[in-house]
Amino acid sequence: MQLGLVGLGRMGFNMRARLRAQGHDVVGYDPRPEVSDVASLTELASAVTAPRVVWVMVPAGEITRNAIRELASVLGSGDLVIDGGNSRYADDRTHADLLAAAGIGYLDCGVSGGVWGLDEGYGLMVGGADTDVARAMPIFDALRPDGERAGGFVHAGPVGAGHYAKMVHNGVEYGLMQAYAEGYELLEAQDLITDVPGVLQAWTHGTVVRSWLLELLVKALAEDPEFARISGYTEDSGEGRWTVQEALDRAVPAPVISAALFARFASRQADSPAMKAVAALRNQFGGHAVRAADRGTATET
Amino acid sequence: MQLGLVGLGRMGFNMRARLRAQGHDVVGYDPRPEVSDVASLTELASAVTAPRVVWVMVPAGEITRNAIRELASVLGSGDLVIDGGNSRYADDRTHADLLAAAGIGYLDCGVSGGVWGLDEGYGLMVGGADTDVARAMPIFDALRPDGERAGGFVHAGPVGAGHYAKMVHNGVEYGLMQAYAEGYELLEAQDLITDVPGVLQAWTHGTVVRSWLLELLVKALAEDPEFARISGYTEDSGEGRWTVQEALDRAVPAPVISAALFARFASRQADSPAMKAVAALRNQFGGHAVRAADRGTATET
Amino acid sequence: MQLGLVGLGRMGFNMRARLRAQGHDVVGYDPRPEVSDVASLTELASAVTAPRVVWVMVPAGEITRNAIRELASVLGSGDLVIDGGNSRYADDRTHADLLAAAGIGYLDCGVSGGVWGLDEGYGLMVGGADTDVARAMPIFDALRPDGERAGGFVHAGPVGAGHYAKMVHNGVEYGLMQAYAEGYELLEAQDLITDVPGVLQAWTHGTVVRSWLLELLVKALAEDPEFARISGYTEDSGEGRWTVQEALDRAVPAPVISAALFARFASRQADSPAMKAVAALRNQFGGHAVRAADRGTATET
Amino acid sequence: MQLGLVGLGRMGFNMRARLRAQGHDVVGYDPRPEVSDVASLTELASAVTAPRVVWVMVPAGEITRNAIRELASVLGSGDLVIDGGNSRYADDRTHADLLAAAGIGYLDCGVSGGVWGLDEGYGLMVGGADTDVARAMPIFDALRPDGERAGGFVHAGPVGAGHYAKMVHNGVEYGLMQAYAEGYELLEAQDLITDVPGVLQAWTHGTVVRSWLLELLVKALAEDPEFARISGYTEDSGEGRWTVQEALDRAVPAPVISAALFARFASRQADSPAMKAVAALRNQFGGHAVRAADRGTATET
Repeated sequence: MQLGLVGLGRMGFNMRARLRAQGHDVVGYDPRPEVSDVASLTELASAVTAPRVVWVMVPAGEITRNAIRELASVLGSGDLVIDGGNSRYADDRTHADLLAAAGIGYLDCGVSGGVWGLDEGYGLMVGGADTDVARAMPIFDALRPDGERAGGFVHAGPVGAGHYAKMVHNGVEYGLMQAYAEGYELLEAQDLITDVPGVLQAWTHGTVVRSWLLELLVKALAEDPEFARISGYTEDSGEGRWTVQEALDRAVPAPVISAALFARFASRQADSPAMKAVAALRNQFGGHAVRAADRGTATET
Repeated sequence: MQLGLVGLGRMGFNMRARLRAQGHDVVGYDPRPEVSDVASLTELASAVTAPRVVWVMVPAGEITRNAIRELASVLGSGDLVIDGGNSRYADDRTHADLLAAAGIGYLDCGVSGGVWGLDEGYGLMVGGADTDVARAMPIFDALRPDGERAGGFVHAGPVGAGHYAKMVHNGVEYGLMQAYAEGYELLEAQDLITDVPGVLQAWTHGTVVRSWLLELLVKALAEDPEFARISGYTEDSGEGRWTVQEALDRAVPAPVISAALFARFASRQADSPAMKAVAALRNQFGGHAVRAADRGTATET
Repeated sequence: MQLGLVGLGRMGFNMRARLRAQGHDVVGYDPRPEVSDVASLTELASAVTAPRVVWVMVPAGEITRNAIRELASVLGSGDLVIDGGNSRYADDRTHADLLAAAGIGYLDCGVSGGVWGLDEGYGLMVGGADTDVARAMPIFDALRPDGERAGGFVHAGPVGAGHYAKMVHNGVEYGLMQAYAEGYELLEAQDLITDVPGVLQAWTHGTVVRSWLLELLVKALAEDPEFARISGYTEDSGEGRWTVQEALDRAVPAPVISAALFARFASRQADSPAMKAVAALRNQFGGHAVRAADRGTATET
Repeated sequence: MQLGLVGLGRMGFNMRARLRAQGHDVVGYDPRPEVSDVASLTELASAVTAPRVVWVMVPAGEITRNAIRELASVLGSGDLVIDGGNSRYADDRTHADLLAAAGIGYLDCGVSGGVWGLDEGYGLMVGGADTDVARAMPIFDALRPDGERAGGFVHAGPVGAGHYAKMVHNGVEYGLMQAYAEGYELLEAQDLITDVPGVLQAWTHGTVVRSWLLELLVKALAEDPEFARISGYTEDSGEGRWTVQEALDRAVPAPVISAALFARFASRQADSPAMKAVAALRNQFGGHAVRAADRGTATET
């Protein structure tokens, strides 16, 4: 089928390739002319025959909001917009209402798989009306892993459900990564273990902890043994925070996901104001030595 | 090759079956005559031709210690004992020394895979000397997943390394399980999600969080939707505690693994002494209502 | 000086008493006629001579918002409103702007001390303009602990700073309470300790952990030994959640405050969906027994 | 009364001074002749009239064990040894048995108060037999805060109870410090707060979070505003680890105390192996940038 695709970055570019490889007619738009098929959203609207399906794959927040608003004006009644970005699920209702005022349908679709999705397919979590989902199903089928009728896709509920499921997916991802990371550090810390990469490699088959993330960890260590070339400075892209906020709003205990998130926050601090306070307190009551700030973390006073 | 196998419980029984299916000659001993091939360890020693290899697959702690001690007396110089149970890695040196005094070699082997190992193969983490590992390699090859030269087995280091790696494996397992569990609860807590099992099913393909544990979670929900038939009371078998203790000993931050462990502790408390103290404090300073103990958790005072 | 006081609940009632005891002329309004000095906010505005100072001490959220809106219409230019409730600090700017449109000044004041404030004085954290703070200073001086020029009061910054400081105060409070509570449970869990209340009592003098909260814990145990009469079911009043959300927004690691909050969430669950998932997983891979839901937490299957 | 005092370091030196100021006859021994009253433990035994009471105030572990062993040989039947150091409570039974074999009594006494104890008195937690406690009571009374019959001292139970109570005290201390530290960082992170030390100062009176530790935090900030001169590198002295291990052994959830401990571990890492693993994973699946190790934490690749 024919699809308009807005956003040809790391994700959208690969998705266009995967869809075309499966015979779909994709008209892609991106502000960078070297990757774009058309010069503007207006041109994209002309190039796709109504009733159109247009997939938005741009960064969450202001950029997505602007794209939705512009599509509301260039598309028309009977068209369907799918937001495949990492938008906050609470924004979906707003987007759906905005488009509905112009007679345009809306689906939110959480997409997982990263740079591997081109070859392996993407995991898709969709929110919206049954009829809209049915209409876009050929696209979902082309994006999901090949031959996987039983996995890689879910119609999770009404508008918002797709992005909510994706948000939780990412929160879980934080916890999984931190669990492996703590295990990695515990293996590194024990001299008995003479082959840490070998242990992780062994874990990838037959064990309870085998997973795709574990395979990636093995691959990463093969490329950079002992992670000598990288620092532990770790960004978070927002969905982990949203997951913890959701836990707060719904009174769901989330000690693991929040601990994983806080470890990332801490990884980005050159020094911790909180730990300065603890060190100062120890010095106050016990006369324990503190380390001077200007010496960095390498020398003790 | 020929193997003596001590312990034919849930794990040992399946391992005997898998080894025999691959053509090995296994003489199994268990105190329960209905599953045992021989009547005693002495008889097992007679039934296996020296130099013997004997695999111990019994509960960690006293029972393993007793088995090792008894084997030290019935086996002889040149034999090899493999402890495949979940022994604490610090015990391995003791066991190795005890057996070495009788000229008997020793390997420790962490085994993962649970009840699925019979068909899918086991993940094996081995500690000990190169020559001992080489000698037992046909057994390891039969137990590990079929055709997996690159995974499912590691010679992790000297004596103790196998059980250390298995201990960390189990600690990681706690963290992974809790991460999925928090995600599950967050999905359940959101009315927008009309198909929680479907979301988890979708995650099993194409996503970053796909794993074998996730597949088991999908399977468990298929068997008992919304987990209506089970309580959250969750045991811990000791290796999670050992992992956190190791983190303490090595000053390795382990917030995720410890949070997962503490969640299990809390799941087993009918009421929490700590939270009684918090509730009492709130009442003291703020006049906030407390809930009466005899009303259970269902009614507010 | 003269003060209008809106809200005569647990906090406001005591504050009126404390202010009057120190010679201030307080006109209190509350919807419950049995405690109110006037019949309406309009009547309160008439009873207080302009330029008026009016203190709002009602539950945060809708009720405070309504009170502020109504005061904006019954008060006049040159008057001053102080919100002493537990409002979210982000609301203060809105309230200040609303009142400023009518020429009315605004201060936000976080108040700590609970039911003890009547006798011991309240800790006050104030946000707003210097001139407004100066104007209300006699009231602040009467409410803060007697003779404490060096403590119990701070002008923390511009509008919003008072409630932000109070929010963080409450977050810290969560952490402190949980720390004592974990210590209490560890003392209870050890048979060697034959006098748990005595240990806590001893801690109240000379030790590093001495505090007012600790004294309250001793008092609570004296009233209800072993907390036999109360359950661990513990509410949270919102400020702990806001504190963690603030930590998320500012990328501040807050493992202790969040752990304290999650422990409260867990205390209110009859059973934990997350732990059901963990128990189900253990059963799936290891064949470990699960406990039946209908048997409660008392019997194993 | 007369007391032998072994160890005149930071704690013992001050304790001798406090005891002498209250009229007790203290014979102190320390390997450093400039502070010692006698040249050896043998000389100390001669200088104190039997039946003797000897207080040991030396670092826990090997040094304490050696002191106890030596005292067992130089003291005699009817004497009493008090271990006032931070020994692990499990060692107390061993020490008591060793001394009992020579007819010598034993008390374990956890001592809190740090460098402030000289003037303010020490919090004391004692384990042992009633008769031994009664015999040493004049010493305990002189060390505890003046005039505090209701606090600062507890006979917590039999041998071991004193050090157990002190261990838990220190675990609680970790949690309290981290709670204040997180609050401090949250105040620092918010521009609205123009007077962070003032907020903490205000909290010291009238609020729910007032405590001695909070007063020390105010004092520390007065001496080093914004903690500009110190780093967050924070040691742990062992008792926090023991507390968490005890939580593991007794299945007591201790999320706050363990989080506080792990924050200290993390504060001492120049870079985190675990977070390197997380950063590497993000790069693997999402193509997210990692920061180069050799650039430190200041530049992004």
